[in-house]
Amino acid sequence: MTTEKNKASNEAQIRQLIDGWVKAFQTKDVNLMMSFHAPEFAAFDIIPPLQYVGKDAYRKVWEEAFALFQDPIELEIRDLSITTGDDVAFSRNLLRVHATRTNGQKSDYWERLTFGFRKIDGKWLITHEHVSLPTDFKSGKAVLYLKP
Amino acid sequence: MTTEKNKASNEAQIRQLIDGWVKAFQTKDVNLMMSFHAPEFAAFDIIPPLQYVGKDAYRKVWEEAFALFQDPIELEIRDLSITTGDDVAFSRNLLRVHATRTNGQKSDYWERLTFGFRKIDGKWLITHEHVSLPTDFKSGKAVLYLKP
Repeated sequence: MTTEKNKASNEAQIRQLIDGWVKAFQTKDVNLMMSFHAPEFAAFDIIPPLQYVGKDAYRKVWEEAFALFQDPIELEIRDLSITTGDDVAFSRNLLRVHATRTNGQKSDYWERLTFGFRKIDGKWLITHEHVSLPTDFKSGKAVLYLKP
Repeated sequence: MTTEKNKASNEAQIRQLIDGWVKAFQTKDVNLMMSFHAPEFAAFDIIPPLQYVGKDAYRKVWEEAFALFQDPIELEIRDLSITTGDDVAFSRNLLRVHATRTNGQKSDYWERLTFGFRKIDGKWLITHEHVSLPTDFKSGKAVLYLKP
């Protein structure tokens, strides 16, 4: 079983990984972003398709996303919770994305973010990611205006 | 570190939990459904708000959801992946929901499902759930027609 000391150390390492992920997103650094992902990574992303399997497929998503946005991208993490064992962990948080597209359109919404992690050769890496907005089934719309 | 033998046993237990969750969904059994959730459970659900914190809030979601659907609810799990340590685990899968609402409207879509688990007093329980559809940012719509 996981000791309290190991838990605290693992949680600190994962918190640092998430800080790095935020920095990569804000600075549109695809290489830094991909350095946090395991080779066998898979994602349920905010955009279609249903899933992305493999790091290479996901790198393209970030390249295309970063090309859509002007600098700076402002992010805010809220309600971060990390649950960690010795070699498996997951986290959840709300994430505000506040940015301007290259076509001038403003984006400002809160999304939900879940990461799954494995400790591989002593280093925590993201093996699963799930990002989404809630769905309003009456209108069929994604709900972009919610605030925590 | 987690031994291979423990991993296999934990994975089997979690697979059984997910089978039970599917059965609870199909038979609209709220009590059975809630028996898989830890007291400190939180969810990013397919519907608003951004998050549900606590089992009691989430019980109401299921009660309201089950009241919307006629029998039977058909479910199909695809691409289930379970990552487990000794006391923390997460899973991801696609889930087809095929059902008829009490107003006669047909539902048939694939959603994405992530669970986070903790082993508490020897028993695996769901502490985090994330369910979603992808978003088409051009139309603002949730994407309901995708197939794996």
